[in-house]
Amino acid sequence: MTHIDLESIEKMDSRYRANLFNTISGFKSANLIGTVNKSGNTNLAIFNSVVHIGANPPYLGFILRPTTVERHTYENLKETGYYTLNHVHESFIGKAHQTSAKYERNVSEFQACGFKEEYLNEFSAPFVKESKIKLGLQFEEEHLIKANDTILVVGKVIHAFLDEKLISADGSVDLSEAGTVTISGLYEYLRPVKLKKLEYAKP
Amino acid sequence: MTHIDLESIEKMDSRYRANLFNTISGFKSANLIGTVNKSGNTNLAIFNSVVHIGANPPYLGFILRPTTVERHTYENLKETGYYTLNHVHESFIGKAHQTSAKYERNVSEFQACGFKEEYLNEFSAPFVKESKIKLGLQFEEEHLIKANDTILVVGKVIHAFLDEKLISADGSVDLSEAGTVTISGLYEYLRPVKLKKLEYAKP
Repeated sequence: MTHIDLESIEKMDSRYRANLFNTISGFKSANLIGTVNKSGNTNLAIFNSVVHIGANPPYLGFILRPTTVERHTYENLKETGYYTLNHVHESFIGKAHQTSAKYERNVSEFQACGFKEEYLNEFSAPFVKESKIKLGLQFEEEHLIKANDTILVVGKVIHAFLDEKLISADGSVDLSEAGTVTISGLYEYLRPVKLKKLEYAKP
Repeated sequence: MTHIDLESIEKMDSRYRANLFNTISGFKSANLIGTVNKSGNTNLAIFNSVVHIGANPPYLGFILRPTTVERHTYENLKETGYYTLNHVHESFIGKAHQTSAKYERNVSEFQACGFKEEYLNEFSAPFVKESKIKLGLQFEEEHLIKANDTILVVGKVIHAFLDEKLISADGSVDLSEAGTVTISGLYEYLRPVKLKKLEYAKP
């Protein structure tokens, strides 16, 4: 086994280090976050950092880095208080990845990358029509991570839209059946294949 | 498409709701967090909430819920300042899942679930010998999420141990080759199969 210590990490080429630490933490979720500002300009960006915060009430979090792409999402959701989370499926990986490009503020990634905006149940933020699992969230709180100026954004799920057939009797959603993908690092997309479903563990 | 609103979420059976919202956010990473307290009692627990916070310096975060299992991890890492992150591979899913059981404070999940403690480079927290990708972290900061009293723990990666063959020329780690799994919800383990590796996206 190779040992990589902090000194050698600091000396690494920056792209090599970015790829190493974006992959080494394990597989990630793949979601498109949809927002709109008060002037009606929509934005769509792919995020691989969505985490479960709680189920009752349902809270999800995601990490925002101080990049142009992610700042548009942040500005819009702070301005309106709402955003959508839409699963990335195998059928539109290329288009979803393209939303990570640094488009100008006045360009909507919905149009630029070929997604259809969908407005459901008078929720103000745009959903992705092509996505089979979509959530409408209300901004709840944010935490500035002092170490590197990233932000944890926490939101409450107030709407969920998905095909009922994807929900098992126990409430769990069949992500494989939906064609939802996982991400390794920043560039690799994978299809998870079921291995084992276990039960609540007891000592 | 079925619409689930906040009112129907609130009325759900609590297990059904927990399964729904633990799965609906997408696929998650699978890591065993190893800790030790000052008396030398070790602890090991599975976490599905590790997220990338930054690469330079390398920071990772994870979410702690106020449960018995996770509290032991939290108490130990706050006491010593150090913890390890060890990938869960296909070959030991059952044992890794078993660490989520509520063992008493004086029971080490290393012994109870059949893992070997490994101490590397004088790092105080125990690594999992069976894991092919392991990280040594130093506690950096924590954020209390007011909405539901969960905690975001942020740590700095100061050691990485893995087979050099798993690292590609661009720095990315081949998690599929390592046999690392992904998790859906709380109980389902899956093997991600590569679909596409894309490139840095430009408008």
